[in-house]
Amino acid sequence: MSTSFFADLLHSIATRGRALLHRAQRSHDESSPEGIVTLCEELLSRRGEASGVALAREVLTHFAQLDSAARLTFFEAIALRFGPNRDRLTAAVEAWRQDPTSQAALELSAAVEPRRQELFRRLNLAPGGTALLVEMRRQLLEVSKGRDDLAPIDADFAHLFASWFNRGFLLMRRIDWSTSASILEKIVRYEAVHAIDSWDDLRSRIDPPDRRCYAFFHPALVDEPLIFVQVALTRGTPEAIGPILAKERSVLGLEKANTATFYSISNCQRGLVGISFGHFLIKQVAEEISREHPNLSHFVTLSPMPGFATWLARERAAEHSDLLRAEDRAALEALDAPGWHADPAQQRTLREPLMRAAAAYLVTAREDNGTPIDPVARFHLGNGAQLERINWLADTLPKGLRQSHGLMANYLYDLGQIERNHEAYVEHHTVLASGPVKRLARTSTHGTQPSPGTTQPGPGTTQPGPGTTQPGESRAANDAERLRPAAP
Amino acid sequence: MSTSFFADLLHSIATRGRALLHRAQRSHDESSPEGIVTLCEELLSRRGEASGVALAREVLTHFAQLDSAARLTFFEAIALRFGPNRDRLTAAVEAWRQDPTSQAALELSAAVEPRRQELFRRLNLAPGGTALLVEMRRQLLEVSKGRDDLAPIDADFAHLFASWFNRGFLLMRRIDWSTSASILEKIVRYEAVHAIDSWDDLRSRIDPPDRRCYAFFHPALVDEPLIFVQVALTRGTPEAIGPILAKERSVLGLEKANTATFYSISNCQRGLVGISFGHFLIKQVAEEISREHPNLSHFVTLSPMPGFATWLARERAAEHSDLLRAEDRAALEALDAPGWHADPAQQRTLREPLMRAAAAYLVTAREDNGTPIDPVARFHLGNGAQLERINWLADTLPKGLRQSHGLMANYLYDLGQIERNHEAYVEHHTVLASGPVKRLARTSTHGTQPSPGTTQPGPGTTQPGPGTTQPGESRAANDAERLRPAAP
Amino acid sequence: MSTSFFADLLHSIATRGRALLHRAQRSHDESSPEGIVTLCEELLSRRGEASGVALAREVLTHFAQLDSAARLTFFEAIALRFGPNRDRLTAAVEAWRQDPTSQAALELSAAVEPRRQELFRRLNLAPGGTALLVEMRRQLLEVSKGRDDLAPIDADFAHLFASWFNRGFLLMRRIDWSTSASILEKIVRYEAVHAIDSWDDLRSRIDPPDRRCYAFFHPALVDEPLIFVQVALTRGTPEAIGPILAKERSVLGLEKANTATFYSISNCQRGLVGISFGHFLIKQVAEEISREHPNLSHFVTLSPMPGFATWLARERAAEHSDLLRAEDRAALEALDAPGWHADPAQQRTLREPLMRAAAAYLVTAREDNGTPIDPVARFHLGNGAQLERINWLADTLPKGLRQSHGLMANYLYDLGQIERNHEAYVEHHTVLASGPVKRLARTSTHGTQPSPGTTQPGPGTTQPGPGTTQPGESRAANDAERLRPAAP
Amino acid sequence: MSTSFFADLLHSIATRGRALLHRAQRSHDESSPEGIVTLCEELLSRRGEASGVALAREVLTHFAQLDSAARLTFFEAIALRFGPNRDRLTAAVEAWRQDPTSQAALELSAAVEPRRQELFRRLNLAPGGTALLVEMRRQLLEVSKGRDDLAPIDADFAHLFASWFNRGFLLMRRIDWSTSASILEKIVRYEAVHAIDSWDDLRSRIDPPDRRCYAFFHPALVDEPLIFVQVALTRGTPEAIGPILAKERSVLGLEKANTATFYSISNCQRGLVGISFGHFLIKQVAEEISREHPNLSHFVTLSPMPGFATWLARERAAEHSDLLRAEDRAALEALDAPGWHADPAQQRTLREPLMRAAAAYLVTAREDNGTPIDPVARFHLGNGAQLERINWLADTLPKGLRQSHGLMANYLYDLGQIERNHEAYVEHHTVLASGPVKRLARTSTHGTQPSPGTTQPGPGTTQPGPGTTQPGESRAANDAERLRPAAP
Repeated sequence: MSTSFFADLLHSIATRGRALLHRAQRSHDESSPEGIVTLCEELLSRRGEASGVALAREVLTHFAQLDSAARLTFFEAIALRFGPNRDRLTAAVEAWRQDPTSQAALELSAAVEPRRQELFRRLNLAPGGTALLVEMRRQLLEVSKGRDDLAPIDADFAHLFASWFNRGFLLMRRIDWSTSASILEKIVRYEAVHAIDSWDDLRSRIDPPDRRCYAFFHPALVDEPLIFVQVALTRGTPEAIGPILAKERSVLGLEKANTATFYSISNCQRGLVGISFGHFLIKQVAEEISREHPNLSHFVTLSPMPGFATWLARERAAEHSDLLRAEDRAALEALDAPGWHADPAQQRTLREPLMRAAAAYLVTAREDNGTPIDPVARFHLGNGAQLERINWLADTLPKGLRQSHGLMANYLYDLGQIERNHEAYVEHHTVLASGPVKRLARTSTHGTQPSPGTTQPGPGTTQPGPGTTQPGESRAANDAERLRPAAP
Repeated sequence: MSTSFFADLLHSIATRGRALLHRAQRSHDESSPEGIVTLCEELLSRRGEASGVALAREVLTHFAQLDSAARLTFFEAIALRFGPNRDRLTAAVEAWRQDPTSQAALELSAAVEPRRQELFRRLNLAPGGTALLVEMRRQLLEVSKGRDDLAPIDADFAHLFASWFNRGFLLMRRIDWSTSASILEKIVRYEAVHAIDSWDDLRSRIDPPDRRCYAFFHPALVDEPLIFVQVALTRGTPEAIGPILAKERSVLGLEKANTATFYSISNCQRGLVGISFGHFLIKQVAEEISREHPNLSHFVTLSPMPGFATWLARERAAEHSDLLRAEDRAALEALDAPGWHADPAQQRTLREPLMRAAAAYLVTAREDNGTPIDPVARFHLGNGAQLERINWLADTLPKGLRQSHGLMANYLYDLGQIERNHEAYVEHHTVLASGPVKRLARTSTHGTQPSPGTTQPGPGTTQPGPGTTQPGESRAANDAERLRPAAP
Repeated sequence: MSTSFFADLLHSIATRGRALLHRAQRSHDESSPEGIVTLCEELLSRRGEASGVALAREVLTHFAQLDSAARLTFFEAIALRFGPNRDRLTAAVEAWRQDPTSQAALELSAAVEPRRQELFRRLNLAPGGTALLVEMRRQLLEVSKGRDDLAPIDADFAHLFASWFNRGFLLMRRIDWSTSASILEKIVRYEAVHAIDSWDDLRSRIDPPDRRCYAFFHPALVDEPLIFVQVALTRGTPEAIGPILAKERSVLGLEKANTATFYSISNCQRGLVGISFGHFLIKQVAEEISREHPNLSHFVTLSPMPGFATWLARERAAEHSDLLRAEDRAALEALDAPGWHADPAQQRTLREPLMRAAAAYLVTAREDNGTPIDPVARFHLGNGAQLERINWLADTLPKGLRQSHGLMANYLYDLGQIERNHEAYVEHHTVLASGPVKRLARTSTHGTQPSPGTTQPGPGTTQPGPGTTQPGESRAANDAERLRPAAP
Repeated sequence: MSTSFFADLLHSIATRGRALLHRAQRSHDESSPEGIVTLCEELLSRRGEASGVALAREVLTHFAQLDSAARLTFFEAIALRFGPNRDRLTAAVEAWRQDPTSQAALELSAAVEPRRQELFRRLNLAPGGTALLVEMRRQLLEVSKGRDDLAPIDADFAHLFASWFNRGFLLMRRIDWSTSASILEKIVRYEAVHAIDSWDDLRSRIDPPDRRCYAFFHPALVDEPLIFVQVALTRGTPEAIGPILAKERSVLGLEKANTATFYSISNCQRGLVGISFGHFLIKQVAEEISREHPNLSHFVTLSPMPGFATWLARERAAEHSDLLRAEDRAALEALDAPGWHADPAQQRTLREPLMRAAAAYLVTAREDNGTPIDPVARFHLGNGAQLERINWLADTLPKGLRQSHGLMANYLYDLGQIERNHEAYVEHHTVLASGPVKRLARTSTHGTQPSPGTTQPGPGTTQPGPGTTQPGESRAANDAERLRPAAP
C-alpha cells in the first residue's frame, strides 16, 4: 500500500469529516483570513482527530487561495492569537520561581510553547500537509521582512522543521536520466549556480558517464529534492567552468578520471531556510564516489566568489585599504572599462592585481564576527574544505563577470582532514589555504599596516584577529542557506 | 540509492569521525555510564556534525551494552545534567517578567528546553538512531517506575517522538504472505490479544482470502510495524472467537462476506507508548476494505472485556453494589465453581445474571473521571464506535475465562457516525450502545439507587454523572496504549 | 539484487571468458564480418556456456561497430552458413518418408531448424542481448529489401521473437510525469502520429488529469516501450485533433468527462515488426480506464486516414471509377487549388463530395484480398471497433491535408461488441459502420455499376465481394505494424 | 501498473471472451478430456486473440481439475491430434526434395512444427499461463514413463521452455530474512539435499551473517524460484556437514571467514527438467560473494556422493572388481554391521579401504559413455570444478550413511580455472582431482588390470578410456537435473 493510497485515505477521511463540519452552522466566510483563523481554533480545540484531518485540509486549501494581502492578515492573526497561553505561562513562571523543580520546568516548558506548534503539528495531518507547511513558511518569509511581530511564527516553523527534517530521516539518491521527469523538472528549476536552460542541457549534466548528481530527500516530500550537488569527473582540477558546461564536449573515460569536481550545489526549498542539511552532502557524495570508483580520490570544487566584486568596489572606494596595495588600487581601474576581459592588454594589466585582491578577499578579509566575507568560502571552509587555488578568467559569462570579475576558486575536500579542518574553522575561524594562495594573499597586504586579519606564521592557517565576535555554528548554517537561494 | 546505502554512508562517516575522536586522549572508560555521559557532553558541545555522527553512534553502541544497573546510573546522570541551563532560564524568566514580549517568550522557550532534546536529536544522526532511541525509551520506562526524577527524560522523549511520529508521516501497509519474514516474525511477537503460536497459525491469519492484516510503519523504522490490526471477513457479526481462529475451517468466499470483523489490534513498540496512532487505524482499514470490496459495508469488532472479571469480583465483594441486582449477586456465586462453563446447568443459572452484569460493566460503570471502566470499551468508543452486542461464552480459552468469564463484545463502526460518536464520547463520555444492550444494562441497575453513571433517557446514550473530572484526549490516548501492551 | 547486478555479473563472466578465448591463438581479424562469423561458429560449436557468454558479448560488440556494407556481408554469411545441416536434413527427410512416425517427425523438426536459431538463443546470453538482437533485426530489415536470400534470417528472428515476446510476458504500465526521463524521451522519439515537439508538448499529453498514456514493456527490455497509446478524456466524441493538442487549453474536470478518445498509437521497435502485441492494447486500456473511472464508458478513436489522398488521386485519374459519382469527380477538382481548406467557398463546394468519397474509401473500397484499403481502418476494424463518423477539416496541419485532405475518422470501441466485430472482420472482412457513414458510402456509389465491394442490405455490415483472396490474421498483423512505423 | 494489474486485465478480458463463447451452442462437456481437446482446437482455429485469452484460461482451468486417468486421456489426444499437419508436411517434404532451396526449408520447418507448439504459445496468454504450463509438463512427466507416444509432447514443451527460460531472461536474487514468506516457504519445500525442518531451521540457514542463499527467478513466474544454492562462509574447507547445520553454533565473524562453502543446490521445478540454468549458478554466486567480500577467495562445495553405496555394493557383489583391492573387499564386510560408524574399532578397520573405494568411485569408475558415475561429481566437474578432498564420516545422518556410507566430497571452484576445467571435462571427460585424491584412487586400483578408466600420468587429470561414447552437453544437463529432483 503506497503513500498515495494513504493520501487517498486521508483524503476520504477528510471528506467525511468535512461533511460533518458543514452540518454545523457557520456564520463567517471560511475562506477569508478570519475564517481560516476560526478553523485553526477549531482544529486546536476540537478533540477529534478525524475531523482534525478534514479541518487541516480545509485550512490549507483555503490558505493556498489567499492573495498576499490576505496572507499577511492571516499571519498577523496567527502571531497574535496562537502564542503561548498567557495565564498559564504566568502561573508556570511563578511556580518555577517559587520552587524551581524539574517538574516546574516541565510545566514551564509546556506553558511557553506557542499554540502555533500544536497547530502546525495538526495541520501536518492533511494529505500533503508537510509540503504545504513548507510552502506556508516560504510565503511567511516573503511578507515578514522587517516585521518583528511575525518572527515568532518563523521561529515555530524552524523549531518544528528542525525536528521533522532531522538529518537522520533524510535519504540521499542519485539523480540521473532514469529519474522521474517530475523530479528532474525541479532540478532544472532549483539550480541556482549555473542555470540549466533546457532538457538537453539537463541531460548533459546528469546522463554522461563522467557526470554525477546527488540529492537529499525527505520521505514526506515525495518528488521534492531538498538540496542537490552536481559533479564532473575530471582529470586534474579544472580551471574554468566553460569546458565543464560546454554542450559539445568529449566525454572523459572513467579510467582516465582522477578527480571529482563539485561545481554546483543548490538548496531547493526556501521554506526550509536555516534547516541545515547541506553541510555534509559534499562529503557524503565524495564517500559514495570513492566507494564506487576507488581511483577517484581527489575531491575539489569549482566555485564562484559571489561577493568579490562588491567587496572590491568598497575597498577601492574607501579612503584607505589594508588589504590592497596602492599600486594595485590604481591598476584595478582597468576593471571599469567594459570588455576588459576580452582585451589581452587589459588582461595583462589586471591579472596580478586582481588575483592578489581575490586572495586577500578570500583569506584575509573578515566580517565583524571574524568569519570570511565570501559566503561560498564560509560554506566550504565550514564543511572542512581548504582553499586550494584561484582561477583567472574562469567564468566569463555575464553573471560571473559581474559578481566575481570572472574569477573562480577551487576548494579541496581531503576526506582525511575534513573533521580537523571543520573544527579549526568552527572554533577559530581558521581559513585553511594552500601555500600559493596564502603567499598571494600576503603579497596583497605586504607593506601595509598589520591588520586584524593579517596572516599569521602558523602552518598553513590564517587566524582571525581580536575583533572576532560570536562565531558559531548557527551562523554557518545560515550562510550555507543564504549562499544559494533557490529560485522561486 | 537505498536507505541501506545511506546507512552505510553514515556508518563510514561515523567510522572516520571515530578515528578522529580516538586520536584525542581520553582518560575515562568510554563504555561506563560516566564515559557515555561524557560522550554525550562532547556530542552537544562540539560543533562538528561529522564527528557528531561518530559520537552519536558511539553513545548508542556503548549504551546498548550496559546492564540494567548501569543503565539506571546513566539515566540518573542524564536527568541531572541535561536539563535546562539554569542560569539562562533564570535570566529568561526575569526578562519575561519585566517585559513579556513575544521575543522574551521565545527566549524563555529556548531556555527552558532541556539540553536532552538537542542530545536526542543529535543521537538520531547515528545509523539506525531512531530505532535505538525508541529502544532507549523502552528501557527507561522499565527502570523509571516511581522515579519522579526520571520523569523529565520520558517527557523529552515523548515530546520528540510526538513530533517525529506525527501521523502525517506514517504509512499503512497490508501484511500478507508476500510480506517479508522479518516483518512477519514481529507480527508473531507483538500480537497481544490472541497469541500466534506458529508460522502456520500466522499464515492462517493473513493468507486466506477472507483474512486481512494492516499495519502502520514509519519511514525511519524499516521493518518495524508500529501497530497492526487483524480482520476476518465474515457473514454477519460473529459471536465467538473460536471459529475465527480455528485452524481447520472453511474459507468464506468473498462474494458471501458482508462484514469485516476486527478481532485483534496490537501496539508493537513499548518505546512509543503514549504516542497516539492507533486511534483511527480501524477507521482507515474499514475505508480501505470498503473501497476494495464495496459489498463489505458492515464493520464490527469482536473484543475482549479484560477488566470485567476484576470489576465483578470487586462488586461482589463490596457491601453494596448499585450495579448488580441482589438476586444476581447470589446467582453469580456459581462462577466460583471451576468448570462452570462446561456444565449446562451452571450455564443456565449464570447466563442471565452474567450478561446483565456485563452490560452494566460496559455501559453504566464508570471511573472517577467519568469514563467507562473497560479499557477496550474506552478505546473503541473513543474511536467513534458503538457497543453493539455482548456474546455469551465467546472465548472459553483460559485467558478469556479468567479475564472476562468467557464473554466478548461487538463494537460497531458505522462510518457515517464515527465522527459524531467520537465527539459525543470525548465531550460527554457518552457511551453509545444498541437498544438490547442498553435494556440489559438497565435491568441490572433497575430498582437500585441512581448512581453517577446511571442511564439517561436520551436517545441511545449514557451520560457521565457529575463526578466527571478532566476527561480528555490525553487520557484516551493513554487508554489506547494501556489497552494492549506489546509483548517485550 | 537487481537486473543491473545480474547484468554486471554476466559482464564479469563474459570478461573472464574472453580472457580464456584470447589465450587461444587467432589469426583472423575478429572485428571483420568474417571474424564475427568465426566467433559465431565457436559460439555454436563450443560446449561451454561460460565462454558462451563471453563469445556472445564479443559477437554483439563487434557487430555493433560494423558499417552497413560490412553488416550486409555478415548477414550474407549468416544466411549461407547457418541454415539447417543439409546432410542431417536429407537423412531426416528420407527417414520420415520411409516411416513417418512421430519420432521421425521430431528428428525432421530438429534437422530442419536452422543453426541460426540456436545462434540467436546463445547470443541472448550476452548482457543486454535481447535489445541487441532486436536492433540486429532492425538493421537486417534495412539492408534486406528485395533480397530473398536474406529472408530466412528474418524468418528465424520472427520465430524466436514471437516466442520471447509472447503477450503473456508483457507488462502494461501507465506513462505519466513520474515516469523516468529515459522512457519519456523514447515516447517523444517513437510517437509516429502527431509528432511531439518538446518536453512541454510531451508534458501536456501525459500530465494533465484529462490525459492518459499507456505502454507495453517486456521484462528483458528495460526502459524500452514496445507500443504505446495516447488518450484524451473528453466530453463527447471529438471532431478535430486541434483542440486536443492545443497547448493553451482548459483541462476538463474528470467529473465532466464521459469519453476516452484514443488519438495516437505508435509501435516503437522496428526490430519487432510483425510480432503482434498492439491488437488489444486499446481494449485493455479501455478496460483499465473504465475500471478507474466507471463514468467513462464511451471509447472512441480520432484517427487519420493516411491512404485517402493517394487513393482519391488514383480514382480521379482512372478512366472510370465505381466508387465516385461523376459530378463528384468534377467537384473534387477544387482540391487541386492550394489553400482550399481556408476558403469558405471552396469548402462549401468540396464538403459533400469529399465526405462521400471518404466514406466510399473507408467502407466500400477494397484491396485485392478483400480488406479495406486504409491501414488504420484495417487496424481498428481488426481490433473489433466499428467506423463511427468521418470528420470534416479535422486535421489541417500539412501532413493531415496532404494525406487525408484534412479528414479524420472516429472508430468506436464498444467493449461488449469487440469480440463479435473482430470475428466478423477476420472471417468475412465485414466493415462495421454507423448508419450515417453507411448511407454516405452508398450515396457515393449510387447509380454506378454494382462493384465487388458494394454495400449489402445486412444489419450494419458491408461484406467483401468474390474477389476476396486469402484474408487472414497474419496480414492484419502486418497492417498493424505497417500502420505507424516508428521513427528511427 | 503491476503484473497483478495486468493479470487482472487479462482475467477480465478472459471473462468477457468466455461470455461470448458461452453464447455459442456446445453439445459436449467442456470439462471432460474430450471437451478440453475441443477447446484446444477452437483456440487454434479461431483467429481472435481476445477469445483466445478466454479459451486459454478455460482450457487450463478445466485441465487442472482432471484426475490422473483423465489427464492421460487428454495427453493421448494431444499427442495424436496436435502433431504436424500430415498433408502439408508431405507436400513440404516433396517440394524440398525437388528443389532444396532455403525457401523450401522454411516451409518444411513450418510444416513440421507440431500444432502443439502454437497451442502452448496461445495457452500462455491465460493469466498465470506460464506457471500452469510448467505444471502441465510436470504432470505429463508423471504419466508418460515408458510411453513413447507421449514423448513428442514433452519435446514440444522442452523446445518452448528452452526458448522462454533462456538464461538471458533470468534474474538472480539473494534470499534472506527480508524475503517474502511466499518465496521462503518454497525454499523449505524445494530443498532437496539437507531437508529444512522448520522456519527456525530456515532462518538459521539464510539470516546469520555467515550464511548466504541465492536463487534464479523468471519474470513470469513471480515468487517461484527455479533453482537455489545455500552457502556457508567458513574458515577453511569444512570436513563435515554437522557443524554447518547445527542449530546451536557460533556465528563466524566475516573478517575471519576466508571460504565460501556451497553445501546444497536444489532445482525447484520438475516441470522445467532438462532446461539448464543451474550450470553456472555456483560460479555466479562465487563472483557475487567475492565482489562483496574480496577476502573471500576460496570457493568449495561440501557435497554428497549419492551413488557410492549402490556402486560399492555392486562392486563387492561382482565376481571381480578392477577398482577395489582384494583385501579391501574383505575389510569392507564390516560395513554390513549396523552401527559401525559409531564403533571406533570398526571405524579403524574401514577407514582406509572405504576412502580408497570412494576415490576410485569418483575418479576412476565410469559410465559406459565415459562420464563419472556419481551424478554430483558430473554436475560439479561439468561446471568446471575439481575434486579436492574426500571426508571421512562427514554425514552420519541416516540418509548420508545409506547413500554414501557417511562420506562427503569437497569440490573446488577456482574462478580462474573454471572455463578450462569445464572444457576439458566436456571434451574429454577429464576428471580433475587434487594430488591426494588421485593417489588414493591409484592405490585402490594398484596391481589390478589396467581398466578403461585408469589414471594417466598427465598433469592432474584422469582421462576416459576408449569405451567413451557420445559425451556431451545434453547429457550433462540431464545429470544436473537428475542430480537433485525437487520434492513434489
